[in-house]
Amino acid sequence: MNYREESLKKHAEWKGKIEVVSRVEVDSREKLSLAYTPGVAEPCLAIQKDPEKSFTLTRRWNTVPVITDGTAILGLGDIGPEAGMPVMEGKCALFKAFGGVDAYPLCIRSKDTEEIIKTIKLLAGSFGGINLEDISAPRCFEIETRLKEELDIPVFHDDQHGTAIVVAAALINALKLADKRMEDIKVVINGAGAAGISIAKFLLRFGVKNVIACDKLGVISEGDERFNPAQQELAKVTNRQKLTGTLADAMKGADVFIGVSAANCVTKDMVRSMAEKPILFTLANPVPEISVADAKEAGAFIHGTGSSEYPNQINNVLVFPGLFRGALDVRATTITFEMMMAASRGIAGCVSDKELSRDYILPYAFDKRAHEAVAKAVAEEAVKSGVVRK
Amino acid sequence: MNYREESLKKHAEWKGKIEVVSRVEVDSREKLSLAYTPGVAEPCLAIQKDPEKSFTLTRRWNTVPVITDGTAILGLGDIGPEAGMPVMEGKCALFKAFGGVDAYPLCIRSKDTEEIIKTIKLLAGSFGGINLEDISAPRCFEIETRLKEELDIPVFHDDQHGTAIVVAAALINALKLADKRMEDIKVVINGAGAAGISIAKFLLRFGVKNVIACDKLGVISEGDERFNPAQQELAKVTNRQKLTGTLADAMKGADVFIGVSAANCVTKDMVRSMAEKPILFTLANPVPEISVADAKEAGAFIHGTGSSEYPNQINNVLVFPGLFRGALDVRATTITFEMMMAASRGIAGCVSDKELSRDYILPYAFDKRAHEAVAKAVAEEAVKSGVVRK
Repeated sequence: MNYREESLKKHAEWKGKIEVVSRVEVDSREKLSLAYTPGVAEPCLAIQKDPEKSFTLTRRWNTVPVITDGTAILGLGDIGPEAGMPVMEGKCALFKAFGGVDAYPLCIRSKDTEEIIKTIKLLAGSFGGINLEDISAPRCFEIETRLKEELDIPVFHDDQHGTAIVVAAALINALKLADKRMEDIKVVINGAGAAGISIAKFLLRFGVKNVIACDKLGVISEGDERFNPAQQELAKVTNRQKLTGTLADAMKGADVFIGVSAANCVTKDMVRSMAEKPILFTLANPVPEISVADAKEAGAFIHGTGSSEYPNQINNVLVFPGLFRGALDVRATTITFEMMMAASRGIAGCVSDKELSRDYILPYAFDKRAHEAVAKAVAEEAVKSGVVRK
Repeated sequence: MNYREESLKKHAEWKGKIEVVSRVEVDSREKLSLAYTPGVAEPCLAIQKDPEKSFTLTRRWNTVPVITDGTAILGLGDIGPEAGMPVMEGKCALFKAFGGVDAYPLCIRSKDTEEIIKTIKLLAGSFGGINLEDISAPRCFEIETRLKEELDIPVFHDDQHGTAIVVAAALINALKLADKRMEDIKVVINGAGAAGISIAKFLLRFGVKNVIACDKLGVISEGDERFNPAQQELAKVTNRQKLTGTLADAMKGADVFIGVSAANCVTKDMVRSMAEKPILFTLANPVPEISVADAKEAGAFIHGTGSSEYPNQINNVLVFPGLFRGALDVRATTITFEMMMAASRGIAGCVSDKELSRDYILPYAFDKRAHEAVAKAVAEEAVKSGVVRK
């Protein structure tokens, strides 16, 4: 099937992938008096007295906007806020299907960091959490960081952390099969945008000591001012040998390659230069950094891609529905690294040792157990860390 | 039933009066590829090329946020944004039930006019129209006016115009029964906030020549600087005899009294001082300007209130669902006075001459025909006036 052509047709038929429905009947005078005036005055006054009651007397406990500025939509780049909406709506449909979350798509007509932060802050009382989506780097870092500091509900930029969480989950299980430990491996990440930087930092949390990040200009090393501020910041905690050179140089002897970059930038020779049992996660979409066939020929031990057409699909659909489900269930006030790590472990744990194989390191996106496991792990960790509303 | 107490219980049970549901299935790899990646790239690109396609390829064609700043919630005043949300959710439920509109509740944590305008403008690409709600005067005037000027989708402040439209509908039918004409009557409006000012201006459009607006300080007349700027502006087109004095003075000889003010501010004697066949619309909630029993005793010819417990309920629930349904159906770019007048006539026309009586001047809020009539009238008028997207 030509998905893109067929999808355009379907979108014209669907006339929207989500809709808002009423949960109450308003078809009689009495029912109207309860759901609307005059009865509704009472829950209003109760919330005025205690704003926390907005989590029990309105839908707030279950609502998350999927917010974009349209600047980094899929691999399409800055296509404008309205043009990003099909993705946002799709995400909202997934939020409901896999997490039971009421997600609503919003696009903001601004590329100004302060304006975006302000807009979201002013709306925060309407929602139980905030999902940022497809906002380009480096603005996305500042926007997420500031909102996390200034709001008392969970804020999550899926392109950064959703990807990092599912990559870490895949890595946990891949290392089991390769019989290697986080502490011992060398990981090369190609593509140091929102996702790449987040993956690098996240793997450090999991105990990986040797992470080398690369971008179009090659290996990112401390003090190299050709790189942007976020990348220079990253260089302070990665690449401690201060390696320089090309991606090919970095990949020599690496145990793991993670690509969030561009089609076909990895050659068979580069895979051959890696350590024993090389693990490749090539997430460029729709064409990965190296094809599954080529990677196999070059001796890849485990290969995961972003596509559902091959084994080991690494897709953040496995993350966000359960993550917000768990956070909302315990009325978490934020999303901590510990909660994200719990999500990774939750996903990895869905594949039993018996099931685990080089072609099955992650549960499928449709596996309800996976979303439930993420929700449970995240909720438990939030309670344990005490980042929940009183 | 004690509606308010019962309502609080119900709200705790409902856990939200609306929810977001998915209109597509995402339970297989293929379906996911159509609704989400990779297929979704194609509708995104189509909208990038032509942003108008956001009205056919996403839910935008049917979406309206119900937006408040929480400053004028019901008769409760400024109770804060979160505390306004039960009303907004209720309104969204009514939008769906009576107009098939996907309405979503949003509250803005700001009382700054410019900030509110900016926030709504930045979000406008997400929606097909904007419903402003329970924003206090005089800020609501500036906010609505500016948004109407600066946006190319319908913007409607229901507290102002919804009330005016349904009052005008009631007046059209009441005058039929009283055998009087708009041109000849004297109308006194008590309460010159958002609703009162809008009613006054709207009735002038319908050909009423003699409108006198009053507020707590008494009759509003030109040049009286005790009144706020919006009221002074109104005084230039009303009260052409430059009457001064009290509400009681104004009501002498009046054909119609419209109250959007406070409980029990009208006495039997004041009603007795009115012209023959006096018409009273007393909309203060929950206690009207004069009780139905007292008004009757004093000789009221027709009495309408905001309450569903008496005949002739005058409620803007009759307006907004059909108004937006009609505007969205033809992709109107604005809401004009002509569209609002068409809505009034549409509502009035739902009561046939045979049905029309002193106790039945308006259709019931649950009458589907009424909402359909409003939608049809508004859509036709928008097309006729050419205020629709190409």
